[in-house]
Amino acid sequence: MRLRNVRGASEIISASSYVIDDYKSYRGSFKSLFGNDNDIHVEIGMGKGDFIIGMALKYPNINFIGIEKFDSVLVRAVQKLNDLVIPNLKLIRMDAMDIDNVFDKEVSVVYLNFSDPWPKARHENRRLTSPIFLRKYDLIFSGVKRIVQKTDNRKLFEYSIMSYNNYGYVIDRLSLDLYNDDISDNVSTEYEKKFVQFGSVIYMISVHK
Amino acid sequence: MRLRNVRGASEIISASSYVIDDYKSYRGSFKSLFGNDNDIHVEIGMGKGDFIIGMALKYPNINFIGIEKFDSVLVRAVQKLNDLVIPNLKLIRMDAMDIDNVFDKEVSVVYLNFSDPWPKARHENRRLTSPIFLRKYDLIFSGVKRIVQKTDNRKLFEYSIMSYNNYGYVIDRLSLDLYNDDISDNVSTEYEKKFVQFGSVIYMISVHK
Repeated sequence: MRLRNVRGASEIISASSYVIDDYKSYRGSFKSLFGNDNDIHVEIGMGKGDFIIGMALKYPNINFIGIEKFDSVLVRAVQKLNDLVIPNLKLIRMDAMDIDNVFDKEVSVVYLNFSDPWPKARHENRRLTSPIFLRKYDLIFSGVKRIVQKTDNRKLFEYSIMSYNNYGYVIDRLSLDLYNDDISDNVSTEYEKKFVQFGSVIYMISVHK
Repeated sequence: MRLRNVRGASEIISASSYVIDDYKSYRGSFKSLFGNDNDIHVEIGMGKGDFIIGMALKYPNINFIGIEKFDSVLVRAVQKLNDLVIPNLKLIRMDAMDIDNVFDKEVSVVYLNFSDPWPKARHENRRLTSPIFLRKYDLIFSGVKRIVQKTDNRKLFEYSIMSYNNYGYVIDRLSLDLYNDDISDNVSTEYEKKFVQFGSVIYMISVHK
């Protein structure tokens, strides 16, 4: 992802009512933040937010939390939310590596959209579908563990299928060319829209265990 | 696969020393046919034989058996073999459905190349990677079970990945675009060569359990 510095990004983010600054105090009780008992779905690396905002609008009975490390993209999501009131959406500025320190047995679904492929073998552990991360997700899920991933990166997708398979996940849905399937229920990310325009194949997988 | 009638095909096939007519008498003792204790690899639906002939030439210390239902393509393989002496290759004219009645705990690897996709849901059981067939393969394997599959059919490949995953297979290798990977060890089929020329993506997976 190309990052551009945005002047005052940090202040704009902190000022947004969507962004949880004291997220560490909600560990194990994120539902209290929403004031209901609905399921919590988390998107790791939400970028500019098109996917999670779209999902939150589409599924008002699910609580969505988007996490993102980089101010420069998170600020774009925050700006989009300026004039919207979406009670079932919150955002956290954090590193995915900390995810098991932030959530505790309270997440139903993890979304991974167009994650950094970290193509070099020595960076395998940084891929969000490496066993390192799958172990972290184990700790944040309550009940059935469910991961839904989209990417245009073939190597990351091949790796991810093998990683899920090795880790005991069952594949519920798999598309090796999402835009040539029935995608009536698809909510796209900002990158996805661009990639499809340029003729890229979009891969999708949904797994549970 | 488009089938064309070949005059005298049945006679040409029966006359070939590569074709085992009395294959039912070798059940459980196919190695005796080769006069050695080398592993047996079976290609189900060998078509015109380019793959299995190429493999047999490349790996003389493995015994290869190709099975094919249709005379009209098997005869093409037989004709190619006319002037060749390949002691580690045999062919059987039979229906894949009977595979567990023909072999008994004696196969190391099953190859599935460009198998009929049987796209309709009601024909799922005819797909060579359906649980019906995976159960049959269980009975023919000795020791570690290994399946290697190539196809250009996206839907069949998606289905097959899910089927292996559900059946407890571990994925050892996976390519969603074989011809853009390192394929120095690839032996291609006659269909594969054509598909690649026309720009099709070739999918490959290797699994074991």
